[in-house]
Amino acid sequence: METHKQLTIGLFGFGVVGEGLYKILQQKPSFNATIKKVCIKNPGKRREAPEDLFTTDRNAILNDPSINVVVEVINESGPAYEIVSTALKNGKSVVSASKKMIAEHLPELLELQQRTGESFLYESAACASIPVIRNLEEYYDNDLLHSIKAIVNGSTNFILTKMFEEKLGFREALHLAQQLGFAESDPSLDVEGYDAANKWTFLLTHAYGIIEKTANLVFSGIQFVQGRDADVAREKHYDIKLVAQAKKLDNGKVAAFVLPQFIKQDDHLAFVKNEYNGVVIESGFADKQFFYGKGAGSFPTASAVLSDLSALRYQYRYEYKKLYHHTPHELTDDFYVRAYLSFDAWKYIPRDRFEWIEEWHADSDRKYLVGVIHFREIKEGSWWKENNTSLVLLPEPILEETQVQQQKRKSLELAELA
Amino acid sequence: METHKQLTIGLFGFGVVGEGLYKILQQKPSFNATIKKVCIKNPGKRREAPEDLFTTDRNAILNDPSINVVVEVINESGPAYEIVSTALKNGKSVVSASKKMIAEHLPELLELQQRTGESFLYESAACASIPVIRNLEEYYDNDLLHSIKAIVNGSTNFILTKMFEEKLGFREALHLAQQLGFAESDPSLDVEGYDAANKWTFLLTHAYGIIEKTANLVFSGIQFVQGRDADVAREKHYDIKLVAQAKKLDNGKVAAFVLPQFIKQDDHLAFVKNEYNGVVIESGFADKQFFYGKGAGSFPTASAVLSDLSALRYQYRYEYKKLYHHTPHELTDDFYVRAYLSFDAWKYIPRDRFEWIEEWHADSDRKYLVGVIHFREIKEGSWWKENNTSLVLLPEPILEETQVQQQKRKSLELAELA
Repeated sequence: METHKQLTIGLFGFGVVGEGLYKILQQKPSFNATIKKVCIKNPGKRREAPEDLFTTDRNAILNDPSINVVVEVINESGPAYEIVSTALKNGKSVVSASKKMIAEHLPELLELQQRTGESFLYESAACASIPVIRNLEEYYDNDLLHSIKAIVNGSTNFILTKMFEEKLGFREALHLAQQLGFAESDPSLDVEGYDAANKWTFLLTHAYGIIEKTANLVFSGIQFVQGRDADVAREKHYDIKLVAQAKKLDNGKVAAFVLPQFIKQDDHLAFVKNEYNGVVIESGFADKQFFYGKGAGSFPTASAVLSDLSALRYQYRYEYKKLYHHTPHELTDDFYVRAYLSFDAWKYIPRDRFEWIEEWHADSDRKYLVGVIHFREIKEGSWWKENNTSLVLLPEPILEETQVQQQKRKSLELAELA
Repeated sequence: METHKQLTIGLFGFGVVGEGLYKILQQKPSFNATIKKVCIKNPGKRREAPEDLFTTDRNAILNDPSINVVVEVINESGPAYEIVSTALKNGKSVVSASKKMIAEHLPELLELQQRTGESFLYESAACASIPVIRNLEEYYDNDLLHSIKAIVNGSTNFILTKMFEEKLGFREALHLAQQLGFAESDPSLDVEGYDAANKWTFLLTHAYGIIEKTANLVFSGIQFVQGRDADVAREKHYDIKLVAQAKKLDNGKVAAFVLPQFIKQDDHLAFVKNEYNGVVIESGFADKQFFYGKGAGSFPTASAVLSDLSALRYQYRYEYKKLYHHTPHELTDDFYVRAYLSFDAWKYIPRDRFEWIEEWHADSDRKYLVGVIHFREIKEGSWWKENNTSLVLLPEPILEETQVQQQKRKSLELAELA
C-alpha cells in the first residue's frame, strides 16, 4: 500500500465554484484534503465559513510552505495567471478552472510545467463534469484519433434549445438563460463563441498536440443565428448547435473550428439539450464514443476540481503525450466546407468564390443558399459576419481536395451528357 | 522526455479480435509494438499472416524473455487463466479480453498483481470501446460515486431493440442477431445474462471495491421477456433493457444486480440501441455522466486492447483504489425493488410476500402486477424464473427501508381516513 500525498489547499476565489468545493470537502472529510486559507478580493462580503479562513493577501497562500496545492477558481484571467505561475514556481501543484487564462497562456504554462515538474490540472475548465481532457490524454493516446466534435458551451446550447423546442426568439431565450443562471449578465463571451473557442484551443492540445491562440482559430458564436435559420433547419429535420470540431485529414493535418452547425436528429449531439455538454470522439476501429454530462454550474465544476485533487494524491500530471511523445499534428486551412448562408441581398455574398452552389432560395425577403466553399474564404474574410449574414455549416461539413475535384468532374460529365 | 517501454508482444488467439489487432498494428507502425509470436490451437487453418509467426506451443511465448507483453484473446476461460497467470509470474505485462475468466478468477488475479507488481489490463473485457474501467478507476476515485447503471451486453440489447422497433418476436430477433454476428451460435451466455453479470462483477470492483462471484449476484437475461411484456412497456411509454445496476444506499452498502428493466424514453439508456453499450454514472455534485459506444465486435475490442497497450508504454497499472486505498463497500440484499411481473396464473406468484401491490391486471390469459418486494425474496427464491413468469424492474427500482416504511404509514393513514 503506497502512501498518498496529503493535500493542504490554498484556495483562490470563493464564488459559486470555490464555495461549492468548500462545502463538498466539509461534507466529505474522508478526502483528507483541508483548505487552509482562502484568498478573496472583497473582504466585506458575508460568507458561510469561519472568518479566519479568509485573507486578501495572495502571499499568505503562495509563500506558505505548508500549502502544497493551490486551487484557482477566480475567473479573472490576468490575476489567475500570476497566481498559477507563481504557485508552480513555488513548488506547489495547481488545479485551475480558468479556461480563458489557460487559452491565453498555454505556451508559458507548458514551459512552466516542464521546468518545475509540478502538476497543473484543469479538467473543470472544459465540459466541467465530463472527463474529456483525461480521456483525450490517457485513453486516445495513439494516432487513431480521427475526429472530435463537441458542444462545449452550455449557455449557447441552452439558448438554441429554447429557440428550437419552445420557439422562443434569441433575446427571450437569452433572458431565460440569464434568469436560470446559465448565462452571465454580460453574455458576449458565451454568445459570440469566445468561451467555446478558448476551451477548444487546449482540447486541441490534448487531442492532437496542437498549440494555437484562440484568435487564430476560426470561430463564431450564435449571435448571427436568426429565427428564419431555425425554420429552415426544422424544414430539413435538423437542429442547430454551436459545434467545436476537429478532424484529421488524409494528409495528416488537422481541420478545426467552432461554428454553428446543422445537426441531424439522430446525431449524438442532438441528444445534448439545454445546459448540457457532449463530446463525440471518432477513433480508428472503435467507431464513435459519446460522452455526455453537465458542462457548467457550481457543483459539476467543483466535482471536476475534486477529481483533479484526487488525481494529485497519486502524483498525476498531464504528459501532453500528443505534443511531446508523438509528432504533433499541424493545423491547416486547406480544405472545404459545405455551408448554409442566409442573407438580405445577394450583393453581400461572394458567389463566385464558391466551388459550387447546391441550393438557393431567393423567393422571400430573407434569402439563403447551400454551397461548398474553401475554408480560407471563411478564415480570411469577414463577409460572413457582416450585413446581417448568417453562416451555419451542414452536417459532416468538411470536404477534402480530392472529394471536391471528384465532385466537380462528375458534374462536368453530367453536363456533357446533357 | 522519458523513454517508453518498447512492446514485444506474444499474442494468444487469432480470432476476430486477435486478427483485428494484428491488422491494426500492421497499418500503424508508429505504435512501436511488434507481435513476435502468435499462439493458436489449430495450426491447419488458413490465416492471412506469415506462417512462421504462429506456434501451437504456449511456452514459445511464455518462456521467451524477449517478449514483455502477453495479449490474451482466446475466450476459453480455463486455458486463458493458465496463460495469464503464468505470464504474470514470468514477469510479463498482460492485456486480456476474457471477461468470463476475469470474473471467475478475480481474487487470484488481484493477488498475482500484488505479488508480481506486473500490469494486468482488461479494458476490452467490458463495453469494449468505452473506457469504463479506466474512468471508474481514475476519475471517480472518491466516495462520491452514487450509482452506476449500464447496458453491457450488445447481443441482448440488439434483440430487445428489434423486438421493440420492428416488433419482431424473440426467436426472430435472435436469429437476425446471429446472422449479423452480434450473437454467438450458442447464445445462452448472452441471452441468459451470464455475460453481463460476469462483466458486472469486475466493474463493481473498480466502482466500489467489491469482490463477488458471478453466482452470488442476482441476475437474469432476457430469456423470460415476452411479446406481451413489450406491449405493456409500450402502453406505459417505456423501453425494456437488460440493465446492470449498482447503487450506494444511505447506510453506505451497495445494492447491485443485472435484470431486465423498464426504461423511460427520456432516460440516457433509451438512447442505447442495437448492439451499442452505454454507461450512466451518477456522482455526487456532478449529476449524471453518460458514456456511449460500441460494446463488441472485432475492431472496437481490438481498439480497446490497443489503448491498454498504449497505457503499458507508460507503465500504467490499475491501482484498484476503491479496494486498497479506500474502505471497500459491502454488497447488501437489504433493500426493496419495484417490480413488474407477468404470469399465467396467480398461484405461481407469492402475493403475500409483496410489501404492497400497486397495480394488477387479471383480465386476459396473461396476467400481470406491479408491486414492491424485498430484494431477498428475489435473491433467495427462484419462483420468478419458473412457470413462464417474467420479471421486469420499474424505472428507479431501488427503495430503501425508510422509503418503504414511510409509504406504508401513508397508506395506513389514508385507510383510516376512508
